[in-house]
Amino acid sequence: MHSISQYQEIISTHFNGLKITKEPKNLYEPIQYILNLGGKRMRPVLTLMAAEIFDCDYSSALNAATAVEVFHNFSLIHDDIMDDAPLRRGNQTVHEKWNINTGILSGDAMLILAYKHFEKYEPIVFSALAKLFSKTALEVCEGQQYDVDFETREDVTIAEYLKMIEYKTAVLVGAAMKMGAIVAQTTDQNQNLIYDFGLNLGIAFQLQDDYLDVFGNPETFGKQIGGDIIENKKTYLYLKAKEFSNEKDKQQLLNLFSTQLTDDNSEKIKTVQTIFDRSGASNKTQEAIKMYTQKAFQRLKEMQISDEKKQILYAFGEKLMNRTV
Amino acid sequence: MHSISQYQEIISTHFNGLKITKEPKNLYEPIQYILNLGGKRMRPVLTLMAAEIFDCDYSSALNAATAVEVFHNFSLIHDDIMDDAPLRRGNQTVHEKWNINTGILSGDAMLILAYKHFEKYEPIVFSALAKLFSKTALEVCEGQQYDVDFETREDVTIAEYLKMIEYKTAVLVGAAMKMGAIVAQTTDQNQNLIYDFGLNLGIAFQLQDDYLDVFGNPETFGKQIGGDIIENKKTYLYLKAKEFSNEKDKQQLLNLFSTQLTDDNSEKIKTVQTIFDRSGASNKTQEAIKMYTQKAFQRLKEMQISDEKKQILYAFGEKLMNRTV
Repeated sequence: MHSISQYQEIISTHFNGLKITKEPKNLYEPIQYILNLGGKRMRPVLTLMAAEIFDCDYSSALNAATAVEVFHNFSLIHDDIMDDAPLRRGNQTVHEKWNINTGILSGDAMLILAYKHFEKYEPIVFSALAKLFSKTALEVCEGQQYDVDFETREDVTIAEYLKMIEYKTAVLVGAAMKMGAIVAQTTDQNQNLIYDFGLNLGIAFQLQDDYLDVFGNPETFGKQIGGDIIENKKTYLYLKAKEFSNEKDKQQLLNLFSTQLTDDNSEKIKTVQTIFDRSGASNKTQEAIKMYTQKAFQRLKEMQISDEKKQILYAFGEKLMNRTV
Repeated sequence: MHSISQYQEIISTHFNGLKITKEPKNLYEPIQYILNLGGKRMRPVLTLMAAEIFDCDYSSALNAATAVEVFHNFSLIHDDIMDDAPLRRGNQTVHEKWNINTGILSGDAMLILAYKHFEKYEPIVFSALAKLFSKTALEVCEGQQYDVDFETREDVTIAEYLKMIEYKTAVLVGAAMKMGAIVAQTTDQNQNLIYDFGLNLGIAFQLQDDYLDVFGNPETFGKQIGGDIIENKKTYLYLKAKEFSNEKDKQQLLNLFSTQLTDDNSEKIKTVQTIFDRSGASNKTQEAIKMYTQKAFQRLKEMQISDEKKQILYAFGEKLMNRTV
């Protein structure tokens, strides 16, 4: 087994070796550009790690890992167009650097290129990978649509919100790990358990991301604290606060979440933080994070692998969820 | 074997039976909408026809045929966004009826759904279909990019133009037929021959479309005669005229193709028609159409199928290319 940073290094070297830019340049250069913006490469790392957990050399899983990362970056290009986002990883987004049409078409090509990375596997494995990939990719689209729909809905339920983050974020984490398990040709049971491990950890991670967006340490969180509050995002915290606040707090919350971005949003952020705490939403979010993390660890227990391998996945999960930032 | 109109009926019934609209509605309703706009369904018809040519019941090829049609409609949604087109088959385009973001995301989902339609086949066939599909889909993206690039280039060559229409249009015709052949599990040789048959017929068809856009019968062509001239499209006719005109005609052609759309373009159309004729470009285009059609028929001769089956494909090609409109 390798460490996370070793896997990251392996992925990075592999991506540098890919010959992406060919003709027509205007189609392939934006693809090269976004893939070179880097990022933590967590999804492909999980694919390599899962392969080794099930006793398969990571190198066999490199093509599947590449497909996952190419798909993730496809979704970033198209999401950034939809969100009208100017920046991605501190650099211009593709549609800002080129234009919207380039973003659409280069994104389309990336979705197809992701499938092509499975072609190195023999038909049975290819077929299993491509089917899991299609199912996952479609769920990611559905998750993105729910996210868009929720912006203009006032009656979003907790269950709907959880489904949205499951589809938009967590299924790709589960699928990334299951792909490593498929390449390793482990049992169906192990494949499904590692999928559930990744899925539940993915949900826990996203809920924690929501939490840290409000209560994180501005020095280490990477994003601006209160970003979700400024954008009136209906996160788990918001939905729980709406459900459990007293009438006065609830009205204030609804009012604050109908105001637009201003020059100084610090008062709004502070008030919302207080309501999140006072209503018990903060505690309930922490509990949910714990619950999904425990669910992931429960799946881990059921896997038919050595205790040593279980310990590696457990340590990974603990490290991921104990970021205090 | 069935007739073209029978295949069209079969496809139409099959599409009506597909349960496309599920949650989230805002993702799936635009998909249902564009698939119900109809059209001639030529590509899926070719898949069914090819399956029967190689002695396989058409019903086995229905899922592959569906994938081809879903992909084609995905490309229409995204192309219509890029071209800012208000109408498709006489109805509002998806991004006009909804918005650009909906067009992007529903299009993405359709590209994935196309792959999912191959999942009913067993792994060997699934793998062959999905690989051909990825290769083709990527070429269609490349063709679209070349088409966009050519709009702002003055030095497009005939070879580049032919490659563009091959990628943007003809490869999907070849692939549609080859998919029927793959499902029928005929020999690799037959699979490649029917691909080449479709590819060359696809190129001939697109060149004829260019020709009829200028010289067709306005009562039967379906599109406005001179549409390409009004839009200054660098078609085969234009490129040949630029190459073979005398200096005076060439200058006039270049001038006319740098003017924008006006209220009355009839003078421009008439002058360009004259230059296309006088330069020999019209004749050269007719010759190219014949050449590609003959190339398709040559491939047909080499196929290992009964003469009766060859006659069916021959008659189809003749009928397709003898539309005078």
